[in-house]
Amino acid sequence: MRKLKITEMGRMNVEEFRASKKMPLIVVLDDVRSMYNVGSVFRTADAFRVEAIYLCGITAQPPHPEIHKTALGAEDTVDWKHFPTALDAVAYLKEKGYIIYSIEQCEESTMLNELDLSTLNAQSAGYAIILGNEVKGVHQEVVDASDDCIEIPQFGTKHSLNVSTTAGTVIWEFAKQLMIH
Amino acid sequence: MRKLKITEMGRMNVEEFRASKKMPLIVVLDDVRSMYNVGSVFRTADAFRVEAIYLCGITAQPPHPEIHKTALGAEDTVDWKHFPTALDAVAYLKEKGYIIYSIEQCEESTMLNELDLSTLNAQSAGYAIILGNEVKGVHQEVVDASDDCIEIPQFGTKHSLNVSTTAGTVIWEFAKQLMIH
Repeated sequence: MRKLKITEMGRMNVEEFRASKKMPLIVVLDDVRSMYNVGSVFRTADAFRVEAIYLCGITAQPPHPEIHKTALGAEDTVDWKHFPTALDAVAYLKEKGYIIYSIEQCEESTMLNELDLSTLNAQSAGYAIILGNEVKGVHQEVVDASDDCIEIPQFGTKHSLNVSTTAGTVIWEFAKQLMIH
Repeated sequence: MRKLKITEMGRMNVEEFRASKKMPLIVVLDDVRSMYNVGSVFRTADAFRVEAIYLCGITAQPPHPEIHKTALGAEDTVDWKHFPTALDAVAYLKEKGYIIYSIEQCEESTMLNELDLSTLNAQSAGYAIILGNEVKGVHQEVVDASDDCIEIPQFGTKHSLNVSTTAGTVIWEFAKQLMIH
């Protein structure tokens, strides 16, 4: 099979991206330390036309050369906003009518393979997912303010996946249900 | 909802991991340059109990502090082997009876959301996925030697996702079909 050339991939330019319909999903980063992870989430958010990224607490903001290294320009296409804390972002999103999921391993989390958005309230403005710090995860009080937790089932020795891997996997599941029909 | 403590996650120790049944999936890295990506793929492979990782060409091998930074010990649990080129790995896998997918954007690729392993030859030893270099992707001759290409549909301005994000998303789809029932 022949690999496609970049010109054959039919990608949008920045203006087309800005004008395009987005997936109703907002990605909230709660004290994410690594700019590699921030950049990578921007790149994934561009690929799946995520509505916006909310950068909270210590999470670095563009423009920054370390974010650019993995975002490769996606930090200029995807909308973003900064909030002092993820709790502030959650309050803002609740007022706007978003359904909010912390991505965490909790008592009675919803497993990612069981996520079914078709049964949810059609009145919602959209969805938000919250990804936490590389070591500490999402703050407990942010989990408490969320509507539910989504957990990626894991079968090995380590306690968690990398933040950018987690973001990619979860955003992909939302994209399958909200973008790809 | 209460976040689980690490001790409540019920993870395996290294000996239990080694003795456990693995998912019949081998991840082949073809000239992957970034040790961050290599380490992250090890960590994802641990989480989903991937059979092995084949490190080909210039892809770095453990032990290495830069791989350890993102693998966090998963380089000691997941089996791995080095091959001079990905073509050598493909020849070895074909002889063993694996079905081989390049993860690439090709003419007539199978879209990841359409991947259906239930219809495939039950006689196969398992599956292999090949992830390529950060800039050049999988070599065309490696694509030619594969049984099929799997492509992640993308809707933004950038041409591809990060290697570790791609690996996580694709391994997750295999895990849903092979591990989680």
